[in-house]
Amino acid sequence: MPANSSPPTVKRSDARRNRDSILSAARSAFADPDARVSMAEISRRAGVGMATLYRNFPSRRALLEALYAAEVDAVCEAAKTASGASPGAALRAWLRQFFAFGASKKHLAAELLTHVNSDSPVFNDNRTRVLAAGRPLFDAAQRVHQIRDDLTFEQALDMLVSIATIDGNARYQEPILQTVLDGLAPPAVPSDD
Amino acid sequence: MPANSSPPTVKRSDARRNRDSILSAARSAFADPDARVSMAEISRRAGVGMATLYRNFPSRRALLEALYAAEVDAVCEAAKTASGASPGAALRAWLRQFFAFGASKKHLAAELLTHVNSDSPVFNDNRTRVLAAGRPLFDAAQRVHQIRDDLTFEQALDMLVSIATIDGNARYQEPILQTVLDGLAPPAVPSDD
Repeated sequence: MPANSSPPTVKRSDARRNRDSILSAARSAFADPDARVSMAEISRRAGVGMATLYRNFPSRRALLEALYAAEVDAVCEAAKTASGASPGAALRAWLRQFFAFGASKKHLAAELLTHVNSDSPVFNDNRTRVLAAGRPLFDAAQRVHQIRDDLTFEQALDMLVSIATIDGNARYQEPILQTVLDGLAPPAVPSDD
Repeated sequence: MPANSSPPTVKRSDARRNRDSILSAARSAFADPDARVSMAEISRRAGVGMATLYRNFPSRRALLEALYAAEVDAVCEAAKTASGASPGAALRAWLRQFFAFGASKKHLAAELLTHVNSDSPVFNDNRTRVLAAGRPLFDAAQRVHQIRDDLTFEQALDMLVSIATIDGNARYQEPILQTVLDGLAPPAVPSDD
């Protein structure tokens, strides 16, 4: 039977599997910030031919964008299930996941930035999605005064995004993240300045 | 009398004045982030000829580096005179000046980065100078427990540097800066996460 006569459902699940294999291989390949990963290397790691790779992702940029969007999906999904002893704790738990996403994806984002600029829809659409996903958590925590009221959610996210770009391993970054998360609490006493 | 026969002291003070005029003109020219400022424009604003400009700063890069170093001088100088009601307040007052330097100089730093990379001695030397200038303030505040003890001065500065890169005007940045400064205080109660 000719290859292109298989039933549509089989073709669809094969196609899905190939796409997932490619994204998974690309994700682990890009996890090493020092590796300059070629499309050929990704094809090899995913166990698919170059034709299949390029049919799914016509360019390196298309692959990077899909990978980035898939990571954003995961962060948005995490907002739905974030939990904690209080609304403030639930928000902080999710902000930690968001920070980890930012810190681990900065090399991916940096490479993506070599293809598109930071004003591109790639970044703006994903930012919009993250804002929509996390806002209920932020609003709930602010409503019960567990988050300071002079800060908007946009400002809180910008702050997390910026500190996620700081060089250094998780051990170096952790006290910085904790400082920022502690700063989100309403000031307990008049500040000394 | 030929121009080059003036007494050395006059020549030195003229030279100093020219250099200061150029740096001052370049500083105000670079304050507008949208302006792509040419060497000719800086020469015009400073009221010196192109020959004088290039004798002082043989390249655009040399001018940018000198400008950056002069700004760092000012921040270091400010550390010596920083004061407040307490060591913590003195540190925060200086960190505010450091933040303002970072926020206002990001365009200058960005342009400098097009000439040198971020590992360059230009940045490392200046970072070393800022660390040396501010450390006594940080140590004094930490010693009297007005600054959390799980954070080093390097981490505090990295945090300030990163949030200074956030886009937005001073009104947008202020609550972010205040959040971070508040976060520097030792946690008052066990955190809720």
